[in-house]
Amino acid sequence: MVLASASPARLGVLRGAGIDPVVRVSGVDEDSLATMLADAAPAELVTALARAKADAVAADIATEYPDAVIVGCDSMLHIGGELVGKPGCAEAALRRWQAMAGGTGELLTGHAVVRLDRGIPAAAASGAQTTVIRFSIPSENEIEAYVGTGEPLQVAGAFTLDGRGGWFVDGIDGDPSSVIGISLPLTRRLFAEVGVAVVSLWS
Amino acid sequence: MVLASASPARLGVLRGAGIDPVVRVSGVDEDSLATMLADAAPAELVTALARAKADAVAADIATEYPDAVIVGCDSMLHIGGELVGKPGCAEAALRRWQAMAGGTGELLTGHAVVRLDRGIPAAAASGAQTTVIRFSIPSENEIEAYVGTGEPLQVAGAFTLDGRGGWFVDGIDGDPSSVIGISLPLTRRLFAEVGVAVVSLWS
Repeated sequence: MVLASASPARLGVLRGAGIDPVVRVSGVDEDSLATMLADAAPAELVTALARAKADAVAADIATEYPDAVIVGCDSMLHIGGELVGKPGCAEAALRRWQAMAGGTGELLTGHAVVRLDRGIPAAAASGAQTTVIRFSIPSENEIEAYVGTGEPLQVAGAFTLDGRGGWFVDGIDGDPSSVIGISLPLTRRLFAEVGVAVVSLWS
Repeated sequence: MVLASASPARLGVLRGAGIDPVVRVSGVDEDSLATMLADAAPAELVTALARAKADAVAADIATEYPDAVIVGCDSMLHIGGELVGKPGCAEAALRRWQAMAGGTGELLTGHAVVRLDRGIPAAAASGAQTTVIRFSIPSENEIEAYVGTGEPLQVAGAFTLDGRGGWFVDGIDGDPSSVIGISLPLTRRLFAEVGVAVVSLWS
Protein backbone atom coordinates (compact mmCIF):
# COMPACT_ATOMS: atom_id res chain seq x y z
CA MET A 1 0.00 0.00 0.00
CA VAL A 2 1.12 3.53 -0.81
CA LEU A 3 -0.32 6.44 1.17
CA ALA A 4 -0.50 9.56 -1.01
CA SER A 5 -0.35 11.94 1.98
CA ALA A 6 2.29 13.59 4.16
CA SER A 7 0.00 13.58 7.22
CA PRO A 8 1.61 11.95 10.27
CA ALA A 9 -1.89 11.54 11.78
CA ARG A 10 -3.01 9.41 8.81
CA LEU A 11 0.16 7.31 8.98
CA GLY A 12 -0.41 6.83 12.72
CA VAL A 13 -3.99 5.62 12.21
CA LEU A 14 -2.86 3.11 9.57
CA ARG A 15 0.06 1.79 11.64
CA GLY A 16 -2.23 1.41 14.67
CA ALA A 17 -4.60 -0.59 12.47
CA GLY A 18 -1.93 -2.98 11.18
CA ILE A 19 -0.70 -1.44 7.90
CA ASP A 20 2.69 0.24 7.45
CA PRO A 21 2.37 1.93 4.05
CA VAL A 22 4.98 3.52 1.81
CA VAL A 23 4.41 7.30 1.93
CA ARG A 24 4.56 9.36 -1.28
CA VAL A 25 3.28 12.89 -1.55
CA SER A 26 1.66 14.11 -4.75
CA GLY A 27 2.57 17.39 -6.39
CA VAL A 28 -1.13 18.17 -6.94
CA ASP A 29 -1.91 21.89 -6.80
CA GLU A 30 -4.85 21.63 -4.40
CA ASP A 31 -5.73 25.31 -4.50
CA SER A 32 -6.00 25.41 -8.29
CA LEU A 33 -8.10 22.28 -8.34
CA ALA A 34 -10.37 23.59 -5.59
CA THR A 35 -10.82 26.83 -7.53
CA MET A 36 -11.71 24.88 -10.69
CA LEU A 37 -14.27 22.88 -8.69
CA ALA A 38 -15.68 25.91 -6.86
CA ASP A 39 -19.25 24.95 -7.82
CA ALA A 40 -18.95 21.34 -6.66
CA ALA A 41 -20.71 20.15 -3.50
CA PRO A 42 -18.25 19.70 -0.58
CA ALA A 43 -18.45 15.88 -0.76
CA GLU A 44 -17.65 15.99 -4.49
CA LEU A 45 -14.76 18.38 -3.88
CA VAL A 46 -13.00 16.25 -1.23
CA THR A 47 -13.50 13.16 -3.40
CA ALA A 48 -12.08 14.92 -6.49
CA LEU A 49 -9.06 16.14 -4.52
CA ALA A 50 -8.44 12.67 -3.10
CA ARG A 51 -8.71 11.21 -6.61
CA ALA A 52 -6.26 13.74 -8.04
CA LYS A 53 -3.70 12.88 -5.35
CA ALA A 54 -4.10 9.10 -5.75
CA ASP A 55 -3.87 9.36 -9.57
CA ALA A 56 -0.74 11.55 -9.42
CA VAL A 57 1.07 9.25 -7.00
CA ALA A 58 -0.03 6.15 -8.95
CA ALA A 59 1.66 7.62 -12.05
CA ASP A 60 4.78 8.54 -10.05
CA ILE A 61 5.33 5.12 -8.47
CA ALA A 62 4.12 2.80 -11.28
CA THR A 63 7.65 1.72 -12.19
CA GLU A 64 8.90 1.39 -8.62
CA TYR A 65 5.81 -0.42 -7.21
CA PRO A 66 4.01 -1.90 -10.25
CA ASP A 67 1.44 -3.82 -8.15
CA ALA A 68 0.71 -1.24 -5.48
CA VAL A 69 -2.63 -0.05 -4.20
CA ILE A 70 -2.58 3.73 -3.67
CA VAL A 71 -4.82 5.68 -1.29
CA GLY A 72 -5.44 9.42 -1.64
CA CYS A 73 -7.22 11.47 1.07
CA ASP A 74 -8.72 14.88 1.50
CA SER A 75 -10.62 16.34 4.48
CA MET A 76 -12.57 19.52 5.10
CA LEU A 77 -14.24 20.84 8.20
CA HIS A 78 -17.43 22.88 8.15
CA ILE A 79 -18.52 24.87 11.17
CA GLY A 80 -21.45 27.24 11.01
CA GLY A 81 -21.72 26.74 7.25
CA GLU A 82 -18.13 27.91 6.83
CA LEU A 83 -15.12 25.96 5.58
CA VAL A 84 -12.54 25.96 8.36
CA GLY A 85 -8.78 25.49 7.95
CA LYS A 86 -5.75 25.64 10.25
CA PRO A 87 -5.84 28.79 12.39
CA GLY A 88 -2.08 29.31 12.02
CA CYS A 89 -1.71 31.73 14.94
CA ALA A 90 -2.82 31.86 18.57
CA GLU A 91 -5.23 34.75 18.06
CA ALA A 92 -7.11 32.89 15.30
CA ALA A 93 -7.21 29.68 17.39
CA LEU A 94 -8.68 31.60 20.36
CA ARG A 95 -11.35 33.18 18.14
CA ARG A 96 -12.15 29.81 16.56
CA TRP A 97 -12.75 28.19 19.97
CA GLN A 98 -14.79 31.14 21.24
CA ALA A 99 -16.99 30.75 18.15
CA MET A 100 -17.36 26.97 18.12
CA ALA A 101 -17.65 26.16 21.88
CA GLY A 102 -20.92 24.31 22.49
CA GLY A 103 -21.61 23.99 18.77
CA THR A 104 -21.15 21.29 16.16
CA GLY A 105 -18.94 20.84 13.12
CA GLU A 106 -19.04 18.50 10.15
CA LEU A 107 -15.93 16.74 8.94
CA LEU A 108 -16.06 15.69 5.28
CA THR A 109 -13.61 13.01 4.25
CA GLY A 110 -12.91 11.96 0.67
CA HIS A 111 -10.81 8.93 -0.18
CA ALA A 112 -9.70 7.45 -3.51
CA VAL A 113 -8.04 4.11 -4.16
CA VAL A 114 -6.14 3.07 -7.32
CA ARG A 115 -4.93 -0.49 -7.86
CA LEU A 116 -2.01 -0.98 -10.22
CA ASP A 117 -1.47 -4.19 -12.15
CA ARG A 118 2.03 -4.40 -13.69
CA GLY A 119 2.27 -0.62 -13.58
CA ILE A 120 -1.12 0.04 -15.20
CA PRO A 121 -4.16 1.37 -13.28
CA ALA A 122 -6.42 -1.69 -13.24
CA ALA A 123 -9.21 -0.48 -10.94
CA ALA A 124 -10.20 2.65 -9.03
CA ALA A 125 -12.83 3.59 -6.47
CA SER A 126 -13.62 6.71 -4.47
CA GLY A 127 -16.14 8.01 -1.99
CA ALA A 128 -16.83 10.46 0.81
CA GLN A 129 -18.45 10.53 4.19
CA THR A 130 -19.42 12.99 6.89
CA THR A 131 -18.85 12.89 10.64
CA VAL A 132 -20.52 15.31 13.06
CA ILE A 133 -18.35 16.69 15.88
CA ARG A 134 -19.97 18.09 19.04
CA PHE A 135 -17.72 20.58 20.81
CA SER A 136 -17.70 21.06 24.59
CA ILE A 137 -17.73 24.47 26.25
CA PRO A 138 -14.20 24.97 27.61
CA SER A 139 -13.68 27.84 30.05
CA GLU A 140 -11.65 30.88 28.94
CA ASN A 141 -8.82 29.55 31.07
CA GLU A 142 -9.00 26.14 29.34
CA ILE A 143 -9.09 27.71 25.87
CA GLU A 144 -6.04 29.84 26.68
CA ALA A 145 -4.14 26.87 28.12
CA TYR A 146 -5.03 24.73 25.08
CA VAL A 147 -4.00 27.40 22.60
CA GLY A 148 -0.82 27.90 24.66
CA THR A 149 0.24 24.29 23.98
CA GLY A 150 0.42 25.15 20.27
CA GLU A 151 -1.49 21.99 19.32
CA PRO A 152 -4.57 23.68 17.82
CA LEU A 153 -2.62 26.13 15.64
CA GLN A 154 -1.61 23.64 12.97
CA VAL A 155 -4.76 21.50 12.71
CA ALA A 156 -7.94 22.16 10.74
CA GLY A 157 -10.66 23.51 13.00
CA ALA A 158 -8.16 24.12 15.83
CA PHE A 159 -8.85 20.76 17.51
CA THR A 160 -7.64 17.17 17.61
CA LEU A 161 -9.61 14.14 18.74
CA ASP A 162 -6.61 12.05 19.80
CA GLY A 163 -4.53 14.77 21.48
CA ARG A 164 -5.31 17.39 24.14
CA GLY A 165 -8.31 18.50 22.05
CA GLY A 166 -10.07 15.28 23.07
CA TRP A 167 -10.90 16.85 26.47
CA PHE A 168 -13.03 19.44 24.67
CA VAL A 169 -15.02 17.25 22.26
CA ASP A 170 -18.18 15.88 23.91
CA GLY A 171 -18.80 13.35 21.18
CA ILE A 172 -19.02 12.57 17.49
CA ASP A 173 -21.56 10.91 15.22
CA GLY A 174 -19.61 9.02 12.59
CA ASP A 175 -16.23 7.42 12.19
CA PRO A 176 -13.50 8.56 14.63
CA SER A 177 -10.65 7.49 12.31
CA SER A 178 -12.00 9.88 9.65
CA VAL A 179 -11.67 12.77 12.13
CA ILE A 180 -8.06 11.85 12.89
CA GLY A 181 -7.34 11.74 9.16
CA ILE A 182 -8.19 8.52 7.32
CA SER A 183 -11.44 6.61 7.58
CA LEU A 184 -10.68 2.93 8.09
CA PRO A 185 -14.19 1.65 7.22
CA LEU A 186 -14.43 3.81 4.05
CA THR A 187 -10.92 2.76 2.97
CA ARG A 188 -11.83 -0.89 3.57
CA ARG A 189 -14.93 -0.57 1.35
CA LEU A 190 -12.94 1.13 -1.42
CA PHE A 191 -10.23 -1.58 -1.20
CA ALA A 192 -12.97 -4.20 -1.61
CA GLU A 193 -14.31 -2.35 -4.69
CA VAL A 194 -10.90 -2.63 -6.40
CA GLY A 195 -10.55 -6.29 -5.40
CA VAL A 196 -8.16 -5.91 -2.43
CA ALA A 197 -8.98 -7.46 0.96
CA VAL A 198 -7.67 -5.13 3.67
CA VAL A 199 -6.52 -8.10 5.75
CA SER A 200 -4.08 -9.05 2.94
CA LEU A 201 -2.25 -5.73 3.59
CA TRP A 202 -1.81 -6.29 7.34
CA SER A 203 1.77 -6.58 8.51
CA MET B 1 -3.36 12.38 39.01
CA VAL B 2 -3.63 8.72 39.94
CA LEU B 3 -5.32 6.31 37.52
CA ALA B 4 -7.02 3.47 39.43
CA SER B 5 -6.84 1.05 36.51
CA ALA B 6 -4.35 -1.42 35.04
CA SER B 7 -5.63 -0.83 31.48
CA PRO B 8 -2.85 0.11 29.03
CA ALA B 9 -5.54 1.50 26.67
CA ARG B 10 -6.70 4.00 29.35
CA LEU B 11 -3.11 5.00 30.09
CA GLY B 12 -2.49 5.49 26.37
CA VAL B 13 -5.54 7.76 25.97
CA LEU B 14 -4.41 9.91 28.91
CA ARG B 15 -0.81 10.17 27.73
CA GLY B 16 -1.98 11.11 24.24
CA ALA B 17 -4.11 13.84 25.83
CA GLY B 18 -1.26 15.33 27.87
CA ILE B 19 -1.47 13.62 31.28
CA ASP B 20 0.98 11.00 32.53
CA PRO B 21 -0.71 9.64 35.66
CA VAL B 22 0.60 7.42 38.43
CA VAL B 23 -1.05 3.98 38.00
CA ARG B 24 -2.40 2.14 41.05
CA VAL B 25 -4.72 -0.85 40.81
CA SER B 26 -7.43 -1.36 43.42
CA GLY B 27 -8.05 -4.67 45.11
CA VAL B 28 -11.82 -4.26 44.63
CA ASP B 29 -13.64 -7.55 44.13
CA GLU B 30 -15.62 -6.50 41.07
CA ASP B 31 -17.58 -9.73 40.77
CA SER B 32 -18.85 -9.59 44.38
CA LEU B 33 -19.83 -5.96 44.00
CA ALA B 34 -21.58 -6.61 40.69
CA THR B 35 -23.49 -9.48 42.30
CA MET B 36 -24.53 -7.22 45.19
CA LEU B 37 -25.73 -4.63 42.68
CA ALA B 38 -27.48 -7.13 40.44
CA ASP B 39 -30.71 -5.09 40.46
CA ALA B 40 -28.99 -1.78 39.55
CA ALA B 41 -29.40 -0.24 36.11
CA PRO B 42 -26.26 -0.69 33.97
CA ALA B 43 -25.31 3.02 34.24
CA GLU B 44 -25.60 2.82 38.05
CA LEU B 45 -23.54 -0.37 38.11
CA VAL B 46 -20.56 1.00 36.13
CA THR B 47 -20.65 4.17 38.22
CA ALA B 48 -20.70 2.21 41.48
CA LEU B 49 -17.80 0.03 40.33
CA ALA B 50 -15.78 3.08 39.25
CA ARG B 51 -16.49 4.69 42.63
CA ALA B 52 -15.41 1.59 44.55
CA LYS B 53 -12.11 1.50 42.66
CA ALA B 54 -11.41 5.23 43.11
CA ASP B 55 -12.27 5.07 46.84
CA ALA B 56 -10.07 2.01 47.41
CA VAL B 57 -7.06 3.54 45.63
CA ALA B 58 -7.61 6.90 47.38
CA ALA B 59 -7.33 5.13 50.74
CA ASP B 60 -4.25 3.20 49.59
CA ILE B 61 -2.28 6.22 48.38
CA ALA B 62 -3.41 8.91 50.85
CA THR B 63 -0.08 8.89 52.71
CA GLU B 64 2.09 8.67 49.62
CA TYR B 65 0.21 11.29 47.52
CA PRO B 66 -1.80 13.37 50.04
CA ASP B 67 -2.99 15.90 47.42
CA ALA B 68 -3.75 13.55 44.53
CA VAL B 69 -6.83 13.42 42.37
CA ILE B 70 -7.82 9.78 41.72
CA VAL B 71 -9.84 8.50 38.76
CA GLY B 72 -11.66 5.15 38.76
CA CYS B 73 -13.21 3.66 35.62
CA ASP B 74 -15.53 0.85 34.65
CA SER B 75 -16.92 -0.06 31.23
CA MET B 76 -19.53 -2.52 29.99
CA LEU B 77 -20.64 -3.39 26.51
CA HIS B 78 -24.23 -4.31 25.65
CA ILE B 79 -25.02 -6.01 22.36
CA GLY B 80 -28.48 -7.37 21.66
CA GLY B 81 -29.56 -6.65 25.23
CA GLU B 82 -26.75 -8.84 26.51
CA LEU B 83 -23.73 -7.84 28.61
CA VAL B 84 -20.63 -8.78 26.59
CA GLY B 85 -17.16 -9.47 27.99
CA LYS B 86 -13.84 -10.65 26.57
CA PRO B 87 -14.32 -13.69 24.33
CA GLY B 88 -11.15 -15.34 25.67
CA CYS B 89 -10.79 -17.89 22.84
CA ALA B 90 -10.88 -17.82 19.03
CA GLU B 91 -14.14 -19.79 18.77
CA ALA B 92 -15.99 -17.34 21.02
CA ALA B 93 -14.54 -14.35 19.11
CA LEU B 94 -15.69 -15.85 15.78
CA ARG B 95 -19.22 -16.44 17.14
CA ARG B 96 -19.32 -12.91 18.61
CA TRP B 97 -18.47 -11.33 15.24
CA GLN B 98 -20.91 -13.56 13.35
CA ALA B 99 -23.62 -12.38 15.78
CA MET B 100 -22.79 -8.65 15.86
CA ALA B 101 -21.81 -7.96 12.20
CA GLY B 102 -24.08 -5.23 10.83
CA GLY B 103 -25.59 -4.54 14.25
CA THR B 104 -25.01 -2.02 17.00
CA GLY B 105 -23.67 -2.15 20.54
CA GLU B 106 -23.81 0.23 23.47
CA LEU B 107 -20.75 1.00 25.53
CA LEU B 108 -21.50 2.20 29.07
CA THR B 109 -18.68 4.03 30.81
CA GLY B 110 -18.66 4.97 34.49
CA HIS B 111 -16.02 7.23 36.00
CA ALA B 112 -15.44 8.43 39.55
CA VAL B 113 -13.05 11.13 40.75
CA VAL B 114 -11.84 11.66 44.33
CA ARG B 115 -9.76 14.69 45.33
CA LEU B 116 -7.56 14.35 48.39
CA ASP B 117 -6.58 17.32 50.53
CA ARG B 118 -3.72 16.52 52.95
CA GLY B 119 -4.63 12.84 52.74
CA ILE B 120 -8.36 13.31 53.39
CA PRO B 121 -11.04 12.91 50.67
CA ALA B 122 -12.16 16.51 50.18
CA ALA B 123 -14.48 16.13 47.17
CA ALA B 124 -15.86 13.38 44.95
CA ALA B 125 -17.87 13.18 41.73
CA SER B 126 -19.04 10.39 39.48
CA GLY B 127 -21.08 9.83 36.37
CA ALA B 128 -21.77 7.59 33.41
CA GLN B 129 -22.36 7.90 29.70
CA THR B 130 -23.30 5.74 26.75
CA THR B 131 -21.76 5.49 23.29
CA VAL B 132 -23.40 3.61 20.41
CA ILE B 133 -21.12 1.51 18.19
CA ARG B 134 -22.20 0.56 14.67
CA PHE B 135 -20.44 -2.59 13.45
CA SER B 136 -19.57 -3.20 9.79
CA ILE B 137 -20.23 -6.50 8.04
CA PRO B 138 -16.80 -8.13 7.63
CA SER B 139 -16.57 -11.13 5.29
CA GLU B 140 -15.95 -14.60 6.76
CA ASN B 141 -12.37 -14.29 5.49
CA GLU B 142 -11.94 -10.94 7.26
CA ILE B 143 -13.43 -12.24 10.53
CA GLU B 144 -11.07 -15.24 10.44
CA ALA B 145 -8.04 -13.06 9.69
CA TYR B 146 -8.99 -10.63 12.46
CA VAL B 147 -9.52 -13.38 15.03
CA GLY B 148 -6.23 -14.91 13.84
CA THR B 149 -4.32 -11.80 14.93
CA GLY B 150 -5.38 -12.50 18.52
CA GLU B 151 -6.41 -8.88 19.07
CA PRO B 152 -10.15 -9.46 19.65
CA LEU B 153 -9.71 -12.31 22.16
CA GLN B 154 -8.71 -10.13 25.11
CA VAL B 155 -11.00 -7.12 24.62
CA ALA B 156 -14.63 -6.67 25.66
CA GLY B 157 -16.95 -7.22 22.70
CA ALA B 158 -14.10 -8.68 20.59
CA PHE B 159 -13.25 -5.35 18.94
CA THR B 160 -11.01 -2.32 19.32
CA LEU B 161 -11.58 1.12 17.85
CA ASP B 162 -7.91 2.15 17.70
CA GLY B 163 -6.41 -1.15 16.50
CA ARG B 164 -7.25 -3.53 13.63
CA GLY B 165 -10.87 -3.58 14.81
CA GLY B 166 -11.22 -0.02 13.50
CA TRP B 167 -11.55 -1.40 9.94
CA PHE B 168 -14.80 -3.12 11.01
CA VAL B 169 -16.57 -0.31 12.90
CA ASP B 170 -18.62 1.88 10.54
CA GLY B 171 -19.09 4.59 13.14
CA ILE B 172 -20.03 5.56 16.65
CA ASP B 173 -22.44 8.03 18.24
CA GLY B 174 -20.76 9.32 21.37
CA ASP B 175 -17.29 9.82 22.70
CA PRO B 176 -14.49 7.81 21.03
CA SER B 177 -12.17 8.04 24.06
CA SER B 178 -14.83 6.29 26.16
CA VAL B 179 -14.77 3.35 23.73
CA ILE B 180 -10.98 3.07 23.99
CA GLY B 181 -11.28 3.11 27.77
CA ILE B 182 -11.56 6.50 29.46
CA SER B 183 -13.87 9.32 28.43
CA LEU B 184 -11.90 12.54 28.29
CA PRO B 185 -14.94 14.88 28.28
CA LEU B 186 -16.65 13.03 31.18
CA THR B 187 -13.40 12.99 33.19
CA ARG B 188 -12.95 16.72 32.53
CA ARG B 189 -16.48 17.45 33.83
CA LEU B 190 -15.89 15.36 36.96
CA PHE B 191 -12.53 17.07 37.56
CA ALA B 192 -14.33 20.43 37.36
CA GLU B 193 -16.93 19.22 39.89
CA VAL B 194 -14.18 18.50 42.45
CA GLY B 195 -12.45 21.82 41.71
CA VAL B 196 -9.63 20.61 39.48
CA ALA B 197 -8.99 22.19 36.06
CA VAL B 198 -7.82 19.47 33.69
CA VAL B 199 -5.32 21.84 32.11
CA SER B 200 -3.53 22.11 35.49
CA LEU B 201 -2.70 18.38 35.20
CA TRP B 202 -1.15 18.63 31.74
CA SER B 203 2.52 17.75 31.54
